[in-house]
Amino acid sequence: MDKVAVILAAGLGTRMKSNLPKVLHPLAGRPMLTHLIDTCASMFTRVVVVSSGDPAVAAAAAPHQIVVQAERTGTASAAKAALPYFGTGLVTIIYGDNPLISSRTFGHLAAALGDQRCRLGILATRPPDPGMFGRVVGEHGLAERIVEFVDATPEERKITLCNVGGFTGAATDMARWLSLIDNRNSKSEFYLTDIVSIARDEGANVGIVEAEWTECLGINSRSELARAERVLQSRLREALLDSGVTMTAPDTVFLAWDTKIETDVVIEPNVVIGPGVTIAAGTRIRAFSYLEGCVVSRGAVIGPYARIRPGSHIGEDAHVGNFVELKATALGNGAKANHLTYLGDSEIGAHTNIGAGTITCNYDGVAKHRTTIGSNVFIGSDVALVAPVSVGDRVIVAAGSVITENIDADSMAIARSRQVVKQGRGMKPRPLKDSV
Amino acid sequence: MDKVAVILAAGLGTRMKSNLPKVLHPLAGRPMLTHLIDTCASMFTRVVVVSSGDPAVAAAAAPHQIVVQAERTGTASAAKAALPYFGTGLVTIIYGDNPLISSRTFGHLAAALGDQRCRLGILATRPPDPGMFGRVVGEHGLAERIVEFVDATPEERKITLCNVGGFTGAATDMARWLSLIDNRNSKSEFYLTDIVSIARDEGANVGIVEAEWTECLGINSRSELARAERVLQSRLREALLDSGVTMTAPDTVFLAWDTKIETDVVIEPNVVIGPGVTIAAGTRIRAFSYLEGCVVSRGAVIGPYARIRPGSHIGEDAHVGNFVELKATALGNGAKANHLTYLGDSEIGAHTNIGAGTITCNYDGVAKHRTTIGSNVFIGSDVALVAPVSVGDRVIVAAGSVITENIDADSMAIARSRQVVKQGRGMKPRPLKDSV
Amino acid sequence: MDKVAVILAAGLGTRMKSNLPKVLHPLAGRPMLTHLIDTCASMFTRVVVVSSGDPAVAAAAAPHQIVVQAERTGTASAAKAALPYFGTGLVTIIYGDNPLISSRTFGHLAAALGDQRCRLGILATRPPDPGMFGRVVGEHGLAERIVEFVDATPEERKITLCNVGGFTGAATDMARWLSLIDNRNSKSEFYLTDIVSIARDEGANVGIVEAEWTECLGINSRSELARAERVLQSRLREALLDSGVTMTAPDTVFLAWDTKIETDVVIEPNVVIGPGVTIAAGTRIRAFSYLEGCVVSRGAVIGPYARIRPGSHIGEDAHVGNFVELKATALGNGAKANHLTYLGDSEIGAHTNIGAGTITCNYDGVAKHRTTIGSNVFIGSDVALVAPVSVGDRVIVAAGSVITENIDADSMAIARSRQVVKQGRGMKPRPLKDSV
Repeated sequence: MDKVAVILAAGLGTRMKSNLPKVLHPLAGRPMLTHLIDTCASMFTRVVVVSSGDPAVAAAAAPHQIVVQAERTGTASAAKAALPYFGTGLVTIIYGDNPLISSRTFGHLAAALGDQRCRLGILATRPPDPGMFGRVVGEHGLAERIVEFVDATPEERKITLCNVGGFTGAATDMARWLSLIDNRNSKSEFYLTDIVSIARDEGANVGIVEAEWTECLGINSRSELARAERVLQSRLREALLDSGVTMTAPDTVFLAWDTKIETDVVIEPNVVIGPGVTIAAGTRIRAFSYLEGCVVSRGAVIGPYARIRPGSHIGEDAHVGNFVELKATALGNGAKANHLTYLGDSEIGAHTNIGAGTITCNYDGVAKHRTTIGSNVFIGSDVALVAPVSVGDRVIVAAGSVITENIDADSMAIARSRQVVKQGRGMKPRPLKDSV
Repeated sequence: MDKVAVILAAGLGTRMKSNLPKVLHPLAGRPMLTHLIDTCASMFTRVVVVSSGDPAVAAAAAPHQIVVQAERTGTASAAKAALPYFGTGLVTIIYGDNPLISSRTFGHLAAALGDQRCRLGILATRPPDPGMFGRVVGEHGLAERIVEFVDATPEERKITLCNVGGFTGAATDMARWLSLIDNRNSKSEFYLTDIVSIARDEGANVGIVEAEWTECLGINSRSELARAERVLQSRLREALLDSGVTMTAPDTVFLAWDTKIETDVVIEPNVVIGPGVTIAAGTRIRAFSYLEGCVVSRGAVIGPYARIRPGSHIGEDAHVGNFVELKATALGNGAKANHLTYLGDSEIGAHTNIGAGTITCNYDGVAKHRTTIGSNVFIGSDVALVAPVSVGDRVIVAAGSVITENIDADSMAIARSRQVVKQGRGMKPRPLKDSV
Repeated sequence: MDKVAVILAAGLGTRMKSNLPKVLHPLAGRPMLTHLIDTCASMFTRVVVVSSGDPAVAAAAAPHQIVVQAERTGTASAAKAALPYFGTGLVTIIYGDNPLISSRTFGHLAAALGDQRCRLGILATRPPDPGMFGRVVGEHGLAERIVEFVDATPEERKITLCNVGGFTGAATDMARWLSLIDNRNSKSEFYLTDIVSIARDEGANVGIVEAEWTECLGINSRSELARAERVLQSRLREALLDSGVTMTAPDTVFLAWDTKIETDVVIEPNVVIGPGVTIAAGTRIRAFSYLEGCVVSRGAVIGPYARIRPGSHIGEDAHVGNFVELKATALGNGAKANHLTYLGDSEIGAHTNIGAGTITCNYDGVAKHRTTIGSNVFIGSDVALVAPVSVGDRVIVAAGSVITENIDADSMAIARSRQVVKQGRGMKPRPLKDSV
């Protein structure tokens, strides 16, 4: 039986106060919409309903089927826009601002059908503070209807079970029920939540699938976005700890959705890891480091204060030290760049030592150029390498040199001035002013 | 009717174990006393009672009326020192170590008069742990007296309503009541808290204004200072989130009392913002950045690891990258300083590119000098600019140059040595030692 | 009476998923085993039982008496391996993964003997969630036996008092009881916890010493390691706050077990302090600084972004600014190194100013060499000092120089090229590409 997930991503999200559509705000390094799409991946064909005014949402939803809701006339009409893609099997409709729902919970939702003659399954949760959430009226695991908070009686407001915004049923049922939803309410909108009472009117039972609150953190404001990020980071950290990664202070380590870290890696406090990072066993990531889009091989030592940017590869037992930035650079096995260095668009051979203050001048104001340095090279401190340039194996470059031409293997290169000393021209003996 | 706030800032604060007077310890970037003075600003003429031994407190309280309490003989005598400034209207006396009280609460305190024939209003709160706080004895919103914890009966110690240290009444009442306070107690001090029973003795009702505990965090130790900072930071962060600022991890962003950030700014984890910072819409402040006294214009990207010091102005769409420090520097629209750079006392034109490792040598051991760089300039990497110096528009400075003389527009400048290569003088083929 | 502590450090710690033996995982900068050994220091002769497969544990336990447990056949056989060192006084046996127990609690344990005819004292605690902990069966402060969770009846599982793994008795008693423990259980191991019922069988009373849960956090996983670190850091921070140190955000300051900080030091957010750091009164440690093995003298200002490595000494009123790394360097009183600098293996005199971008080239690819700089020296920006080299008092070094030879006092040294300008060779007037 085919399964279709209809993801409603056309909402305005006005409480975010943002020019960025709500579902594109990122969590752990990717849009919340992408989290939801990926969660559905193993079970569903995905259809994303976007607003005509949000081309960026459509772009983010690609390559999945995109349906444009021409006018924002309510969640039910958004769902109806996807009717041509309902197929003949099971349809699950889910609000797009639910990035933390697990695939296990989607499984429970589908499994709710059939039990107790249920033909509709809905997601619900019990928030610590139900506040203004819509309430699920019903008992014994079966829903009678969903009532919006504003329309709820004082008695109904005491209900602690709240609507999450997830609905599953057979495609034919879902299509028919959707067609029966009207907009006779104060806002003249078509509310998807009406589907419950409509199904009940047909005599269908509606099964409630209760999910953990931490999976159901809807996101309507920046505070709620930050809360969801906190929950997600906590999940990611726990998984790493369980797999044998040491974090001195896990709460200060920020991970991405796709971070891969092997066992016996030690991560010091205050480390930020962006998307696309893989770290091999036995490495140490020291405090205040920031890694994105890179591979760190076994035994490497990174930081403190290392900034590794996308396209970089750190070899085994290599060192990247403090105030060192790498961008699109491969650092060979056992190579070291320990202090105040910028290596961009470059390739550094094995066991090469990059002195403090070394800079690859990869940009000439027009284009980027590459720097290639061999193995067992000694680059002295305070050296500038003007790309494109290549340095052979076992070369020595004298401290303070500006290298503009290629250097053959086994050579020594120097490009600096001789020292001149003028006696008696030193500092006058007086207190120095502050250098601030 | 005139309103006078008498702020008692003469206390010793011995539990702080500090040479700095307690009320000068900062919260969110300014002294706690200044927080309280500013909160009173919209409603009150302010009179600050300081100790004769604390000229720094008097300096911090300027330009407000300062009264010196000659001897530390108790809170009531501190208040009496301000008698000449009581005026003819309303007088509110408040302990100076109450930085978090809101102006709304001060309003409630004043409004307490009149109700139920109240002629004195007092501030009270219910701490999670009442501990050693003085207890407010009374009922139905009316106080009978304040009893110090050490003098309280076991029954009184069960009271959860505690004294905050804020009192409001008509100037004439307050003056008379103060004059009736004696020092017949174990410490021979004049306690302001006795004002309650003295007012009651005259038959005046004493209204209790109950404030949120988080507004009433008195500060007597460094732990309590840290706790107040936590509460204040939390308030500042929530206000920014509500206004449409994204913070991935709000708990790791530290703000100042006067931080101004517009909507759709994204702040990554671990950012410290000192006083005097304004950040325009649509900018991104990346991790590990530290900003003080600067303006960041729309679309700019700051950090990671950007250090922006007072007097700096970042133009629209400008970039300040990693390990870059700016001090008293204006960076033009679209200009970029992306790596390992120090720009001090300088002005950089629009769309100018500052190469990695560039340094403005603004100090000659005696005085500071300015560097001026035009627009569309290309400063190569590892360049030192010895100030005072000016560089015209569209200039190219070659990598590794030390610039000591002005450069006209549209020129290319170079100041470095030619490269010399000595064949066969490279590294001996042996394992390199560690560079640590 | 002699007292012997037998520390069982031979466990496998498989749930840590680590190649490092469990008891060597560090907390606050030293192995958890060392914490426990040191806590026992004032009261006990220490004997550490290690596994034959863990030479690293034996090394960490030195110089204390080490006993090798040949085979891992249970905690009782581990304890029996130490029999030759039991002496004639008191023996306390404790699991090695209990790093947070206080010496006060050890004192209580010893004091439990004698009371109520107790001849065995055992440590117990009440975790917030007793989970799978072994339960202590008994009442009125006396234990009957310890029952493993898996063997416990439903009734016994409701007991909230749990076994910690600490046992005290007379050496002769302990030796005899240990000899009576058998391995007739599902795992065929000799369980030390059986000692309780064996002592009871002899008619000895067994006293329960109940310790705070936060002292008894056993460590079996990386999550539990992180939790213990959190508890320990919290203790260390509270002690500093109480002693008069200001921390804006204590939760973001990471301390080592031996950190010494005097009064009126201000520590900004996000500071990491490794082992061996002493900071004198009145200094300021700014955000994002990382200090290890150094002494900071009165009035110094460190950071932000200062990296101070072992063997460094910062003089009074000296400044170490942003993106500055010191390694094995003495910075004189009033000296300043404020920006983008690496000083390694060097000595800097009083009131000397180190310009931005200065680098001591201490490594030549083979060995490390020293740099010595006198007092009242002015090192211009972007200077490289090629060690070994010495610079006399009151010397001026021009910006951009590479210094390779010693400089006498009162001289000025320069080693850079003259500036050449080529008119009309500047940037073509077109939009610059992004420098990323």
